[in-house]
Amino acid sequence: MRQDLFAQRVNPDVPSALSGLFSPDDDPRALSFAAGSPREDLFPVAAMQTAFHTAIAAGGAHLFQYQTAQGNPALRAKLAARIGKWGQVATTADNVVLTVGGQQAIELVAKALLNVGDEVAVEVPTYIGALAAFDLYQPTYHAVPLQADGLDLNRLEDTLKRHPKIKLLYTVPDYHNPTGITMSMAKRQQLVELANRYNFIILEDSPYRDLGYTHAPLPAIKHFDTEGRVVFVSSLSKILMPGLRTGWLVADDDLLTAILRGRMASDLEANNVVHAAINAYLEANDLDAHVAALRASYRGQCSALVQALTTYFPDEVAFTHPDGGFFDWVTLPQNVDAAALLTQAAIPQAHVSYVSSTNFYPARDVHNSLRLCFTGLTPAEIDAGMRRLGAVVKAAVREGRPVV
Amino acid sequence: MRQDLFAQRVNPDVPSALSGLFSPDDDPRALSFAAGSPREDLFPVAAMQTAFHTAIAAGGAHLFQYQTAQGNPALRAKLAARIGKWGQVATTADNVVLTVGGQQAIELVAKALLNVGDEVAVEVPTYIGALAAFDLYQPTYHAVPLQADGLDLNRLEDTLKRHPKIKLLYTVPDYHNPTGITMSMAKRQQLVELANRYNFIILEDSPYRDLGYTHAPLPAIKHFDTEGRVVFVSSLSKILMPGLRTGWLVADDDLLTAILRGRMASDLEANNVVHAAINAYLEANDLDAHVAALRASYRGQCSALVQALTTYFPDEVAFTHPDGGFFDWVTLPQNVDAAALLTQAAIPQAHVSYVSSTNFYPARDVHNSLRLCFTGLTPAEIDAGMRRLGAVVKAAVREGRPVV
Repeated sequence: MRQDLFAQRVNPDVPSALSGLFSPDDDPRALSFAAGSPREDLFPVAAMQTAFHTAIAAGGAHLFQYQTAQGNPALRAKLAARIGKWGQVATTADNVVLTVGGQQAIELVAKALLNVGDEVAVEVPTYIGALAAFDLYQPTYHAVPLQADGLDLNRLEDTLKRHPKIKLLYTVPDYHNPTGITMSMAKRQQLVELANRYNFIILEDSPYRDLGYTHAPLPAIKHFDTEGRVVFVSSLSKILMPGLRTGWLVADDDLLTAILRGRMASDLEANNVVHAAINAYLEANDLDAHVAALRASYRGQCSALVQALTTYFPDEVAFTHPDGGFFDWVTLPQNVDAAALLTQAAIPQAHVSYVSSTNFYPARDVHNSLRLCFTGLTPAEIDAGMRRLGAVVKAAVREGRPVV
Repeated sequence: MRQDLFAQRVNPDVPSALSGLFSPDDDPRALSFAAGSPREDLFPVAAMQTAFHTAIAAGGAHLFQYQTAQGNPALRAKLAARIGKWGQVATTADNVVLTVGGQQAIELVAKALLNVGDEVAVEVPTYIGALAAFDLYQPTYHAVPLQADGLDLNRLEDTLKRHPKIKLLYTVPDYHNPTGITMSMAKRQQLVELANRYNFIILEDSPYRDLGYTHAPLPAIKHFDTEGRVVFVSSLSKILMPGLRTGWLVADDDLLTAILRGRMASDLEANNVVHAAINAYLEANDLDAHVAALRASYRGQCSALVQALTTYFPDEVAFTHPDGGFFDWVTLPQNVDAAALLTQAAIPQAHVSYVSSTNFYPARDVHNSLRLCFTGLTPAEIDAGMRRLGAVVKAAVREGRPVV
């Protein structure tokens, strides 16, 4: 109605990366592998209830007063120590900003860096929410493919040579969303060297780094940062609870200042009540033990998915074998459209939903893949869902033509 | 260090409206009239502690799962009913979005509407945080003066005739920040008629509307909205507690959709844990009674300030007589620079701080006024602070030259 007055960034003719992503299915048999939701029955609800009580008792009225844009210093110190221990990032509370989930951290980095038309490199496929945040600033995208050991750095360097004005590279190096791939140690260091040489910022988004099923987390890309070029982003959504809406970033020098300035103008402050409660939770509980319990569960769910894909899917279909995180990436034959399969067969016949591949590409130009999230469902549900999805995938492959 | 890569919006050469606003003063006698902070000792801390406990007990694990961008439906319904009752805005939960303070609501409206260079009209002086949010989108500003009964609509219409592409007007109609002025009923209706005629959106920012000392709140500007052109914004920061980081907006049709789309891309979701707790607080407590207690206190603090200004300030100084809200606006003689007075005399000699007027003008071109916030101090502190500030103001006026 008022569309003539809208900004270009919310042009309703442009598909939004995050809107309408999840198709409703009210059938009682419905199983969603779409949303990247953690397992609710592992949430430490009672401990967090106690933590809110403790934090409010300790903080009193002043806890509820205006505070700071950067957020609770004690929690920042704990997160700095945590990424020091598990990611070998030498930093302190002074360089940590508490954000509204990892999503706000990504948006704030985009806000600090991107003018309309600025050039951004992203690995593809990539996190949908990052594309949505970048889209707000109307960049020009350069897509760089992933390999089994992470971003293809040769392709990245080719791109940088052709487009030397690229100012930001976005990557999810650990148990990548949507593929589950982890970037090798060697590539982490080489990526920082490229950033130094070609003068760009690396946005390292690592919400899944603690959820490796076979080995401890690798050093962060930011561990190799020599010029304050890496902004490290993580979140408590996947290792604690997403409803806390708490992410965080580590940045240096003027870039930290610019990010904080954008934060104040965007929503003034971090949520000090929630962050004091999280701090109280961390003081009274062992987060590493909680994360170990998550890993044990998710490892089993991941195995169930890989087993089910092996059993029920035809040989023409490829899929990743994640060793951490939330997701598996399934590649159908070139001529099968995953989005059409979703709405025409997967949901109505199999009552299974997933996210189809176009959403993970800035150019929306890859149609035959899909993301499965295995963390929200039991092994039995995973088996049942993949059995049903496998049947419709087999039919689509057999038909040898797009399901349109 | 990386400034060559920064976006224009965070250009460090441009003064930031919100950064460095509050000058530190570690003296034990220091009294701050600068920040717009509510009185902490009136915060309903115990009731909110209980509300968090109740909400977590009732919501369980699912409360902490991913939820929705729009936010807790029960709280949205209560806020819709509240603005229906007190502002005569006919709306429902479906049109309410819960935000991170009123600040995020303002930022989301700017995000939905403004391309670089787009034209925005603001009343002057105006809320600093709104300028900071708009600045992110690099608009062209048109400043429209305030009168004793609100925005000068003749001047606004002149501006609209000369600049017909103005797409957004920002106003704080109730107990305005920084002047305490309230827009008359007649002007509210006329403003909507202007918006319809000249095709712009009104951003009605009303965090102080419940805090009138002499009369019930007027109908909101949005009450008169006939074409979905008014976005109503308010907040629980001033009538409950700012640490909850909870504001809200009411918008219609496609504009609501565009705002929600920007919200998802910015931080995904509202904080459902906090909003469930606020909802539980509202079910167990009488917010109107709490607001009445705030009004009783703030009315006395406001009277103390006006009395002290009358007593201690020289005749050459003018000041507003607010009948609600948090602020008084003091106008010094033309040749006294309030910013210089602050750093050279008010803080070092009187140990009193305030916010000087340049910050409230997009062109930063008015130098001889200042904002005093009276809500955070007792009447005795207000008297003591104004006695000391009055002395340095008298000296500056007597000198008859800028204090530079």
